[in-house]
Amino acid sequence: MDLGVTARVAPLIAQVREMVERDIAPLDAEFHAEVGKHPSGDRFQHTDRQLDILNGLKTLAKERGLWNFWLTGSERGYGLTTVEYAYLAEEMGKVGIAAEVFNCNAPDTGNMEVLERYGTEAHKERWLGRLLEGEIRSAYVMTEPDIASSDAAQLKFRAVREGDHYVLNGEKWWISGAGDPRCGLYIVMAMTDPEAAKHARHTMFVMDADTPGVEKLRPMQVFGQDDAPHGHLHLRFTDVRVPVENVVLGEGRGFEVAQGRLGPGRIHHCMRAIGQAEKALEMMCKRGLAREAFGKKLVELGANYDIIANARMEIEMARLLCLKAAWMMDTKGVREAQPWISQIKVVAPLMAGKVIDEAMQMHGAGGISQDFDLAYMWTHVRTLRFADGPDAVHRRQVARAELRKYVNDKV
Amino acid sequence: MDLGVTARVAPLIAQVREMVERDIAPLDAEFHAEVGKHPSGDRFQHTDRQLDILNGLKTLAKERGLWNFWLTGSERGYGLTTVEYAYLAEEMGKVGIAAEVFNCNAPDTGNMEVLERYGTEAHKERWLGRLLEGEIRSAYVMTEPDIASSDAAQLKFRAVREGDHYVLNGEKWWISGAGDPRCGLYIVMAMTDPEAAKHARHTMFVMDADTPGVEKLRPMQVFGQDDAPHGHLHLRFTDVRVPVENVVLGEGRGFEVAQGRLGPGRIHHCMRAIGQAEKALEMMCKRGLAREAFGKKLVELGANYDIIANARMEIEMARLLCLKAAWMMDTKGVREAQPWISQIKVVAPLMAGKVIDEAMQMHGAGGISQDFDLAYMWTHVRTLRFADGPDAVHRRQVARAELRKYVNDKV
Amino acid sequence: MDLGVTARVAPLIAQVREMVERDIAPLDAEFHAEVGKHPSGDRFQHTDRQLDILNGLKTLAKERGLWNFWLTGSERGYGLTTVEYAYLAEEMGKVGIAAEVFNCNAPDTGNMEVLERYGTEAHKERWLGRLLEGEIRSAYVMTEPDIASSDAAQLKFRAVREGDHYVLNGEKWWISGAGDPRCGLYIVMAMTDPEAAKHARHTMFVMDADTPGVEKLRPMQVFGQDDAPHGHLHLRFTDVRVPVENVVLGEGRGFEVAQGRLGPGRIHHCMRAIGQAEKALEMMCKRGLAREAFGKKLVELGANYDIIANARMEIEMARLLCLKAAWMMDTKGVREAQPWISQIKVVAPLMAGKVIDEAMQMHGAGGISQDFDLAYMWTHVRTLRFADGPDAVHRRQVARAELRKYVNDKV
Amino acid sequence: MDLGVTARVAPLIAQVREMVERDIAPLDAEFHAEVGKHPSGDRFQHTDRQLDILNGLKTLAKERGLWNFWLTGSERGYGLTTVEYAYLAEEMGKVGIAAEVFNCNAPDTGNMEVLERYGTEAHKERWLGRLLEGEIRSAYVMTEPDIASSDAAQLKFRAVREGDHYVLNGEKWWISGAGDPRCGLYIVMAMTDPEAAKHARHTMFVMDADTPGVEKLRPMQVFGQDDAPHGHLHLRFTDVRVPVENVVLGEGRGFEVAQGRLGPGRIHHCMRAIGQAEKALEMMCKRGLAREAFGKKLVELGANYDIIANARMEIEMARLLCLKAAWMMDTKGVREAQPWISQIKVVAPLMAGKVIDEAMQMHGAGGISQDFDLAYMWTHVRTLRFADGPDAVHRRQVARAELRKYVNDKV
Repeated sequence: MDLGVTARVAPLIAQVREMVERDIAPLDAEFHAEVGKHPSGDRFQHTDRQLDILNGLKTLAKERGLWNFWLTGSERGYGLTTVEYAYLAEEMGKVGIAAEVFNCNAPDTGNMEVLERYGTEAHKERWLGRLLEGEIRSAYVMTEPDIASSDAAQLKFRAVREGDHYVLNGEKWWISGAGDPRCGLYIVMAMTDPEAAKHARHTMFVMDADTPGVEKLRPMQVFGQDDAPHGHLHLRFTDVRVPVENVVLGEGRGFEVAQGRLGPGRIHHCMRAIGQAEKALEMMCKRGLAREAFGKKLVELGANYDIIANARMEIEMARLLCLKAAWMMDTKGVREAQPWISQIKVVAPLMAGKVIDEAMQMHGAGGISQDFDLAYMWTHVRTLRFADGPDAVHRRQVARAELRKYVNDKV
Repeated sequence: MDLGVTARVAPLIAQVREMVERDIAPLDAEFHAEVGKHPSGDRFQHTDRQLDILNGLKTLAKERGLWNFWLTGSERGYGLTTVEYAYLAEEMGKVGIAAEVFNCNAPDTGNMEVLERYGTEAHKERWLGRLLEGEIRSAYVMTEPDIASSDAAQLKFRAVREGDHYVLNGEKWWISGAGDPRCGLYIVMAMTDPEAAKHARHTMFVMDADTPGVEKLRPMQVFGQDDAPHGHLHLRFTDVRVPVENVVLGEGRGFEVAQGRLGPGRIHHCMRAIGQAEKALEMMCKRGLAREAFGKKLVELGANYDIIANARMEIEMARLLCLKAAWMMDTKGVREAQPWISQIKVVAPLMAGKVIDEAMQMHGAGGISQDFDLAYMWTHVRTLRFADGPDAVHRRQVARAELRKYVNDKV
Repeated sequence: MDLGVTARVAPLIAQVREMVERDIAPLDAEFHAEVGKHPSGDRFQHTDRQLDILNGLKTLAKERGLWNFWLTGSERGYGLTTVEYAYLAEEMGKVGIAAEVFNCNAPDTGNMEVLERYGTEAHKERWLGRLLEGEIRSAYVMTEPDIASSDAAQLKFRAVREGDHYVLNGEKWWISGAGDPRCGLYIVMAMTDPEAAKHARHTMFVMDADTPGVEKLRPMQVFGQDDAPHGHLHLRFTDVRVPVENVVLGEGRGFEVAQGRLGPGRIHHCMRAIGQAEKALEMMCKRGLAREAFGKKLVELGANYDIIANARMEIEMARLLCLKAAWMMDTKGVREAQPWISQIKVVAPLMAGKVIDEAMQMHGAGGISQDFDLAYMWTHVRTLRFADGPDAVHRRQVARAELRKYVNDKV
Repeated sequence: MDLGVTARVAPLIAQVREMVERDIAPLDAEFHAEVGKHPSGDRFQHTDRQLDILNGLKTLAKERGLWNFWLTGSERGYGLTTVEYAYLAEEMGKVGIAAEVFNCNAPDTGNMEVLERYGTEAHKERWLGRLLEGEIRSAYVMTEPDIASSDAAQLKFRAVREGDHYVLNGEKWWISGAGDPRCGLYIVMAMTDPEAAKHARHTMFVMDADTPGVEKLRPMQVFGQDDAPHGHLHLRFTDVRVPVENVVLGEGRGFEVAQGRLGPGRIHHCMRAIGQAEKALEMMCKRGLAREAFGKKLVELGANYDIIANARMEIEMARLLCLKAAWMMDTKGVREAQPWISQIKVVAPLMAGKVIDEAMQMHGAGGISQDFDLAYMWTHVRTLRFADGPDAVHRRQVARAELRKYVNDKV
């Protein structure tokens, strides 16, 4: 169980880290400061400067061969293991736009995996190439407003077959990336047969984002932020017609696709969250050494030594657990790795939230302001406790896996 | 130690609760939706509708005699005890603009107390009357960007006497309420004698907010929000001239004023935070009863019963501790009550943050969106762990009070 | 809601505190050191010295009129409120044998309440007088080894009517106080009708402890201690004949008696646990001030200030919650007070365990040894998380009470 | 960084696990039940049956070649890595006497390492061979009653040179294993030069346990248990004469020896604690599946799924951290591994305590009794938060290592 930095990935880590620090970080703040400055006033249009920043960095990354690392075990990319990728994703997590710069960002990597693994040649031709090149973006259209979507069997957005098309109707929300004008692909989960067995009711579709009948109702806010231009949109589908060829894997197999998609994506989020925690700890130490109160450095006051030590221990443990989950995926496959993926899905966002919270506290009121990245990081990792399934669902999975060691009955 | 609802305050609680629910809550969302809609595009200007909402509600509150409850033990107001006021403040905490509607909002109550307790007749005449009537707002100008302000002895913003004026120079940030165009009064802490003993270096001034030389550098953001039009401003003072009559209590007595001011203000924040926790628990229960997953009500899944029970217990305990701190203030004075004020200052925001966090989790992704108040409440109570002193400083106070029982030495 | 020390109880607190410190504490260690020194080698026989200590102290307490405080709202005792009693119980919690010295110890107080409230004149005559005088002890015989007794409906120990007797058969364990040779009364819960409705299957009996057919199988150990001579026995009943007159309240009404009994007993445990936490905090402060390491007092190292502050806050809150539960009992009755009793039942032992744990840590290895009371206190309060219902059952009660505010359905 | 089970160690794990379960576990209870049954009544004498059990199992282990695994990287033993040994130690942790059966028990392994690494040929000849064969036991004599021994520079037990001897005087306590009649070796830390630099004041001695002048004052109790016949003794040395040849490494080099000794020992404790947590989780699951209340299996009640999931996650993380610390020792040496050793030293006992606590709670009152191993395990792992340095000292080490990344100054 080699969880370490391999000789192969070591130079890539160094290159990614350097590019994140030197090239991306300075432009990240500028990119975000540009939001809302499009002449139209539309926050969901990129300004020219935003596109320059993104495209410039992406070109640079490609030139340096730092691209599509997430394609683990594949001929198309570096053929890295998930363990190796984890170390790269951690670095990318430290700056907001970094993952996109290396074409390793959610939800695109998960969507590309769907196409790669389950798509037809036609699907791949239409969308996969452009996604792999970073020319378009994509969205995963699953969550619904009127039900607890953590129990996906409840999804009631409808697709009804009419001849050689399906007609889609209903609402979806929290569709991340659907705000981006470059978003070209939707992968949509819809109920096709309400009478079927619980896990055979739903079907996965691929479709162009600009298919008629899709209405952008509003951007969902995340703690008051719209995350423009990426966005998390509330969509309404009215008689949206999708050809039958756009079904992924087959009618009624939506759950299968969804399960296969979620493993890697979940763990990528965790890797990046660990990178954020690592960054927060560094900021906490530096601030605590730089400021004084009551005649002492902040680190020497109160429980700060213990707070720093606890942060180090919790980061270290979460990273190791994440690496083990990655190793399980590499060696045993997503299915068998599932309980470990659930474990790290619970652990990493909670840990990162805690470490960032303490780092904010060490920064005083500045820590919650625009002057440091901590405030954004804190609210962002909080969202990961919902993304790809809330903590409660993952704890349930872990407990069931544990109990199955002792009973044959379903628990 | 009567911590209960008295016969005198019971009907007031009922009236306040009803007005908050029926009259204020429906307009609160509208008030906030108006932000940024002033024709000038200036987020820190109220729209006409905003002023209508505020003034209408304030008039209604006055007509009903629901006004200035915070004036505890005073002839001007109801003469409520702090314990009685706690129950009212809790209700006001449940809706954003409610405290202002009853003229019980921070930082005005604290500032009015400064005037009442330490101000000259001239100070009172100039500002207190209008504040008590809710005609103007005010700001407390203390925190500085370049030092850890939790150790107030480090404040280095300067006031230098020149004839019958002091000339003020320096920067201050996190000046809450300074964004409001109605803000008429600044209470400013400045260093007047760097050579004096540690707690005699600073002086408190009162001054008109529009005194020449005050520059609004920028609004500080709270987790990405500017809280316009109230705002938390970063200010720069350049040769601001303040007449010597505007000194409060005397040169070098700034600490004394600051200490006296903070007791009640700290506890009012806590009372409102408890109200928010109570509201979050209610929302958590209702959502958990209304939604289903895996064939069960959400409350019946996972650890939700325990989460609800823990929330109830923690709210109950924090409320009782807050009431005891209030009772100490009522019966023993702010000074002796200090360790209890520090205790509740640590406990209440942490508790409220935890309960709101769980309530968000019960709401799924909706919980962090604009569709519920929880996201705003969660980030808001997080700020209270800095406001009026960070947790670490208050824990230190509590520990020192405890240790002083056993040693005569200063600890 | 007066939760304070009343004028009536203030002098009693002072007297009890003084007697605990001066008279009882010095003999407590000696009492326990005598265990096992009876000439017979039987740890469950008192030595002469043990009886001298106990009887001497009890006589002293009686002479001083410090006796049977727990008889709240009764003519027989002081007629204290439960709130007033709480302050006394807290003092008694600080030294092991103190509660018995004042005839305020478990399980006798609960058992006396059963007799007082539900017993016939014959029952009272036979046992109550002697218990009130502290001449005999008693045991409450409920918990069974083969089922989860927290769901008391599962109790399967049988009582079958034969003529004017019931014949009892089965096993019971954790029968506290049954090891004491002075134990004269058993109150036994037995299933009389397996076919009846869930809460009408069981009946409560009173009986002499020396009734033939009762076999003492073994003392249960509490973290390796047998708590001799008090003990927590595992008993077997074989054809034990109890006259029908010994039924309490009526056949099938066992649950009613059990419920009525538990309220006060649960809260008395909590009060004493709070006393132990208070004592542990005092020990923690004193030790932390007395010892040095790395050139500083222990209190000044690491997170110790925060640990002390947190302990103070948690004790304060738990005490207030306990007092509120007591006040609910005094003013609303046991039934309505139930959710508060459940709350404090969860909170107090957890809090005390935590504070004592930190106090041990401050004492270094000495903290877990015989040289301080902390080790015993720590394991003792751990047992309270089972006694009178495990935490999980009480959290469930609290959650249900909360949810019932919003639904009419049973939850 | 291979943290997995190697091909080399896999069959050893299987053999050790099988021997622990089949051969040792059934005799462990009997061994402990024999304590105190020696005809002399002396709890610190083994009964014949105890010696039969121990010697029989040790012979069996030797015959099977399951012996001295702890000798990592050595020619004498298997030459296992510390990572490999971790998996074996985890199995040994599950049953009380197992570690001794395989000659892998504290404090002997640490003491043997002292001899191996720092001892002279004469020291090795006299004690090491017999220890490696399991013929004698040993004790490490460091902790003192009158000072906070976590700051070892404070140790004041004296050794004064007189000619070719040192004369030792003073008290030591918590000398684990000194109760065992087979204990043949003491390794003693004593102050030789109070005037020397802080870390050059002390010297380490080896000596026969029966050297005249050593007095066994009393066994220290661990939560009321004396852990006989192993024991943790309080010793008094009166003019104990030790020849100068018995100095280890040189006068004034006691700290160096102590540091070298502690790395492996600390981590072995952690490995075994993880084994105990794993065992507790298994017991928790099995009990929760076997018992019912309120019509459901216990695991389905309350927060039990979450409790099980959390236990699994925390065990998994602690194990990985322990393995990483082991890997650091294997590849970088004890000195560089120090911060990781401190991390796991904090994490493992806390984690194990928590998991065992929850397992007890799932067992109801039985969980704290003699009927299950949980009560002993719970108090035992609590002692590990003192052994080899309290948590606070280790957190301090971790924090300092973290801060040293950013400052050159000593922190």
